[in-house]
Amino acid sequence: MTDQPIRELGENHTVARFRALASGSLSPNVIVGPGDDAAVLSADGDRLLLLACDMMVEGVHFRLDWARPRQIGWKALAQNISDIAAMGGSPFAAVASIAAPGALPEEAAAGIAEGLVAAAARYGASLVGGDLVGSPGPVVVDVAITGWVDRDKLLLRRGAAPGDAVLVTGSLGAAGAGLAALERDLSDAGSSLLAEAFRAHHEPEPRLKEAQAIAATGLATAMMDLSDGLADDLPRLCQQSGVGACLRAGAIPIAPACSFVAQSLGLSDLRLAVSGGEDYELLLTCPPGAVDALSAAVQACGSQLTVIGEITDEEEVLLLDAEGREHPLGRGFNHFAV
Amino acid sequence: MTDQPIRELGENHTVARFRALASGSLSPNVIVGPGDDAAVLSADGDRLLLLACDMMVEGVHFRLDWARPRQIGWKALAQNISDIAAMGGSPFAAVASIAAPGALPEEAAAGIAEGLVAAAARYGASLVGGDLVGSPGPVVVDVAITGWVDRDKLLLRRGAAPGDAVLVTGSLGAAGAGLAALERDLSDAGSSLLAEAFRAHHEPEPRLKEAQAIAATGLATAMMDLSDGLADDLPRLCQQSGVGACLRAGAIPIAPACSFVAQSLGLSDLRLAVSGGEDYELLLTCPPGAVDALSAAVQACGSQLTVIGEITDEEEVLLLDAEGREHPLGRGFNHFAV
Repeated sequence: MTDQPIRELGENHTVARFRALASGSLSPNVIVGPGDDAAVLSADGDRLLLLACDMMVEGVHFRLDWARPRQIGWKALAQNISDIAAMGGSPFAAVASIAAPGALPEEAAAGIAEGLVAAAARYGASLVGGDLVGSPGPVVVDVAITGWVDRDKLLLRRGAAPGDAVLVTGSLGAAGAGLAALERDLSDAGSSLLAEAFRAHHEPEPRLKEAQAIAATGLATAMMDLSDGLADDLPRLCQQSGVGACLRAGAIPIAPACSFVAQSLGLSDLRLAVSGGEDYELLLTCPPGAVDALSAAVQACGSQLTVIGEITDEEEVLLLDAEGREHPLGRGFNHFAV
Repeated sequence: MTDQPIRELGENHTVARFRALASGSLSPNVIVGPGDDAAVLSADGDRLLLLACDMMVEGVHFRLDWARPRQIGWKALAQNISDIAAMGGSPFAAVASIAAPGALPEEAAAGIAEGLVAAAARYGASLVGGDLVGSPGPVVVDVAITGWVDRDKLLLRRGAAPGDAVLVTGSLGAAGAGLAALERDLSDAGSSLLAEAFRAHHEPEPRLKEAQAIAATGLATAMMDLSDGLADDLPRLCQQSGVGACLRAGAIPIAPACSFVAQSLGLSDLRLAVSGGEDYELLLTCPPGAVDALSAAVQACGSQLTVIGEITDEEEVLLLDAEGREHPLGRGFNHFAV
């Protein structure tokens, strides 16, 4: 028992308590409950049902003076698509709840709805319902999504084994760079790399076809999406798998847009790439012998797969710098530090 | 196109616009999209998948100084159970997103989670995941729920035909009376009826077994749950069915707790019962010849079913008072008038 505010305990502490509560009364139809990118549920046929949700709050996850309403809706739906993709699944139907002050222009509300619908349509899902409620506070957009996954394609956060390679799709840091550029008022109309950073932050493109290609190989041992950044997310995958990891800093694929923004702002591009979050790339593990086949599968989707380190039997998640020094991979962003 | 704020346009106007947007790109697997208590989706087997969501905002739908955290969680989950019940379905798995300021005591957050889990367990559902995010604003709790319904048991808002009887389960107004008593600071520690009104407001009990008994008869033509009150909800059922309705004021079953509170506060108990909302009783229609069989089915669940009027082929939804005068049944509560 504690009277401490959740800010001091940290989101992870409260979330762990929530999970313990919920996990105490799950029906036998729940194959995977709280703690992965999506819950996994028995259904009638051969396929398993997936269910996930993600909430965005004005002033924390987006600002109405930075993002167009359509981008807010797109991102809210896209990050849920990413959760289904990370399980090896296919998005099916989504619902969206919006809390908004009465003063919000209807065009802004409609723009959010347009973005939700556009992202659903882009990734083969349907927006089938929702709730719209008044609020004295910030705009809140919460999306819940269902999906289907073949039983033999399901990929969880658990499953990584010592000796496995750790891999990421694409490159990291562009979305975090976009946010950093907005926060520090960086503007350079002529820069296509800055535009790319803004686009990555506002209009993420979940790696659905890459995830499905990876799942189809049957070679990955664990997978999740990078929503909070490698520094937050890899420790979660390791915890669920009961393993540790050691990454090589020089191997992490840093997005050119990230390097550009970092240089402009005098920041470390590695730090931005590791802790920026919201890239919605895939983080996965596989036996070393499976790397080539998985890379070929991802390249066939027009993307790339990069080995950034390996799974260890330690408890720690470490980053090795160029001089071979070990650094603990710390938390990137505490949502409650607002 | 309009620059008007959503408050001036009203929730229904904006919701109608959202529905039109979403309905434009639904996959063939969507049997019923936005506009009913839950969306209805094709799945693998004989059963159909249901998906719904409902959001609650501190200061609009609940107050932390009025409700215990556990009651807030209970209600957030229970109103989603009610949505699944209203389709004739069985609740399956739910996810809950919570936005909260960092200053919220962890015990309050845990209490909300306990209420969510308790309500899920009470009605045979599992809470399988969620999201917890920081917010500079009020606490927001959004629940999304899946359920299953046999194809031949599905009950929609559409389906009511002229001549059908209009019926409600239980009695109306207790929840609205509880809210009115809180708003006007009515307290009487010795009154069990006031305690009943508070309980109805804070801990609604969705009519799941009654709904399943009704669906099992195959005799109802349309059904929905009473979440916003008869004055809001019956017009929605009528609109979806393309009909009107005429209610007899004297036939509406008013909860004793509603009458007690109304008398204490100098309010009309009929008005409170018709527009109070949040009773989560069932509103349904059936051919006149089916009333007895449906009543028997509901009585077997320990509840009651009351005929309150009939469906007409007019466009209007009218309330006939004791003197036979017609009153239009208006909107009960505009969420954006905050």
